[in-house]
Amino acid sequence: MSLYIEPRLLKGFRDFLPAQEIERRLLSEKVEEVFRSFGFVPIDTPALEYTEILLGKSLGETEKQIYRFKDHGKRDVALRFDLTVPFARYMAAHRAELPIPFKRYHIAKVWRGENTQRGRYREFTQCDFDIVGTESLASDLEILLMIYKSLTRLGAGEIRIHVNHRGLFNQFLDKLEIKDKSTEILRTVDKRAKIGEEELSKELAELCGGEKATSLISFITPKDGWKANLDAMVEAIGETTMESERLSEIYTALLELGIAENFYLDPSITRGLDYYTGLVFETFLKDLPDIGSVCSGGRYDDLAGLYSKEPLSGIGASIGLDRLLAALEALGKQDKKTGFAPLAIACMDENLAGQYQKLAEDFRAQGLATLVLSEKRKSVQQYTYAEKMGAALILIADAESLKKGLYTIRNLSERKNYEDLSFEEVLEFAKKYC
Amino acid sequence: MSLYIEPRLLKGFRDFLPAQEIERRLLSEKVEEVFRSFGFVPIDTPALEYTEILLGKSLGETEKQIYRFKDHGKRDVALRFDLTVPFARYMAAHRAELPIPFKRYHIAKVWRGENTQRGRYREFTQCDFDIVGTESLASDLEILLMIYKSLTRLGAGEIRIHVNHRGLFNQFLDKLEIKDKSTEILRTVDKRAKIGEEELSKELAELCGGEKATSLISFITPKDGWKANLDAMVEAIGETTMESERLSEIYTALLELGIAENFYLDPSITRGLDYYTGLVFETFLKDLPDIGSVCSGGRYDDLAGLYSKEPLSGIGASIGLDRLLAALEALGKQDKKTGFAPLAIACMDENLAGQYQKLAEDFRAQGLATLVLSEKRKSVQQYTYAEKMGAALILIADAESLKKGLYTIRNLSERKNYEDLSFEEVLEFAKKYC
Repeated sequence: MSLYIEPRLLKGFRDFLPAQEIERRLLSEKVEEVFRSFGFVPIDTPALEYTEILLGKSLGETEKQIYRFKDHGKRDVALRFDLTVPFARYMAAHRAELPIPFKRYHIAKVWRGENTQRGRYREFTQCDFDIVGTESLASDLEILLMIYKSLTRLGAGEIRIHVNHRGLFNQFLDKLEIKDKSTEILRTVDKRAKIGEEELSKELAELCGGEKATSLISFITPKDGWKANLDAMVEAIGETTMESERLSEIYTALLELGIAENFYLDPSITRGLDYYTGLVFETFLKDLPDIGSVCSGGRYDDLAGLYSKEPLSGIGASIGLDRLLAALEALGKQDKKTGFAPLAIACMDENLAGQYQKLAEDFRAQGLATLVLSEKRKSVQQYTYAEKMGAALILIADAESLKKGLYTIRNLSERKNYEDLSFEEVLEFAKKYC
Repeated sequence: MSLYIEPRLLKGFRDFLPAQEIERRLLSEKVEEVFRSFGFVPIDTPALEYTEILLGKSLGETEKQIYRFKDHGKRDVALRFDLTVPFARYMAAHRAELPIPFKRYHIAKVWRGENTQRGRYREFTQCDFDIVGTESLASDLEILLMIYKSLTRLGAGEIRIHVNHRGLFNQFLDKLEIKDKSTEILRTVDKRAKIGEEELSKELAELCGGEKATSLISFITPKDGWKANLDAMVEAIGETTMESERLSEIYTALLELGIAENFYLDPSITRGLDYYTGLVFETFLKDLPDIGSVCSGGRYDDLAGLYSKEPLSGIGASIGLDRLLAALEALGKQDKKTGFAPLAIACMDENLAGQYQKLAEDFRAQGLATLVLSEKRKSVQQYTYAEKMGAALILIADAESLKKGLYTIRNLSERKNYEDLSFEEVLEFAKKYC
């Protein structure tokens, strides 16, 4: 009788094979390295929280997607669906214990029971970084610089960061006397790329009439260059404001930093979410714009309002690691690493297990990751195995050569052997493949 | 009206403040570095799986503890409660795509709705590493060496790895003609440290009679030294077996590796779980034995039996990171790092945001993590803030000194200023605190 359970996965959930998981981890490590270089610190929060906490600020869509259930104590609980809501709760709970402005990052899984079409998954990784407790120009600038640096670091080619200011957009709505409809208008404009110019005009006209829709379309149509866009916005609003000043200062600073050419002032960027009040931004890959924004965010003036009486402003961004991985794959730029050890040690005699491991330890002590093969098999099988595990070289030694300290090294891709190498020669050889 | 939601957490779940999370991450990174140095590769599996898959092999206790619910599609799903069951399912599903013997590690959160007393949490991190698809001596040895190296690396002082062989234990039960009760006996012996010698004798006597209980107690009482223990076991069984040979070979290899003094052959180690068939081990801290085993595991001969017809043997271990963190704290050995940037740059003028950030970028380009302060506040406030964010030094510069390229550095713990330092001098100074 062979009764067994089919090893199936839930729809929208994924296993990661080593090559995929190595790529995910290396990507995440690179981003984290950038965050740390700015002095940002990590935090963590539970995967599971009271539903009341998670749904506090939510829209209807979230409620439908959230994984929600009763736990053993009959508590109404749910899996987090983003890292922003838990961060808001975290700040309300721990503010007094933290240095303010607080600069944190959080890389973790989130869960949404959404439709799995269009390459969307029900479990995915978010990668958020925020500065809270300050409205300073320095913090706006820092987040923009970090987006530029982390995405450039990930190697997806040239990136374009589109920036706008919610405040300016609202000032224009105010001028048109349609500020009461700002939420709907923001969301409609946010769909621009998806629905197209024509449908956008139609929906805006329905919301606020044909004439104002035309003014809006004209306002959000990008001009050429940061200054031209800013001038046009100031002109449309009718005056220079604190918000337009901020955009001007940011541009000056981006020029000082020598990265202004990667930034686009784009009046059509609104971000759908209610809580943004200042700068908003989206990031596109020059070589793959259609994949959509790979890093978005903005400035908000009340992060933790649901859980705390003290207002807390800040600015933050979120990198979509899963989307970036898909982009790197589409661009043929993914890391094809299948292992960490450039050097493998073949098993010529199972009784030498201790000595092979001792030799490997000597290499590891020199910073060289070394894979020890566990079983005596045919040479060709050992070569294939070592290659699959990511090794570039395999060391071949029997009791005699271990005693002499002279080894044969086979370059696995060249299929060529190098004989009678000393420990130091092997080390030097292998370090080229680190 | 100040209606807000109390930012509370679920019982047994934790927020991690930066200092705690930094310590957790550094610990996890150190362990991962050791795994990678052996050529082990990472995998990942979903947090959520079909309950049928997760409960397949479970005992009653697990079923009570598992977080289980119906998802949107009315599927019976549950959060993983360990990393072993998902790994078994993973191997059944992906065996043909993987290099065998497969050497993997998996560091991830698991969830158990268990009693939260005695410092147990409902969400905690497991850190598993296994070699599957081989019964070789080399693989047994490698797992033991990895335990030694990763725990030594974590800096919890001297470690003691207690090793036994399930096969030998079973051979002795066979000799006593009580092998039919092996499951109960194994579990009873496993409780030895908890229940004490007297209660153990009583329970064993109830299971198999007073005389056999006495023989069992004598068998499991550790002698002095690996060889004495092995000799006593061979004598009790009445012959040398493959299992006793394996223990002998392992000891020889541990001697060759120069780490034999950290290993104890301990016939009282049985591990409660049914699926172990070969080597079993537990790891204790010499300076804090009462905290229990910080790394346990063993050899099994059929990992994926529930999901696949092909048998798959292997050996694996699991490091209890949460327990280790508690141990490090109790031993006063925890890492007290609160940030990653040794150098901070004070904000003397908010209009210089771009220039401060540019200077920071120059330091970062030299590998020095640098924190830029966002707001002009009183000096003492900036010093306090920089210290809380983990900086050792703060650089003070106004427009004039930025132009000249000469900076004042304040050593925050010494409360002492060093003036007119060049970029290179600052760099050299700060690198001492990396």
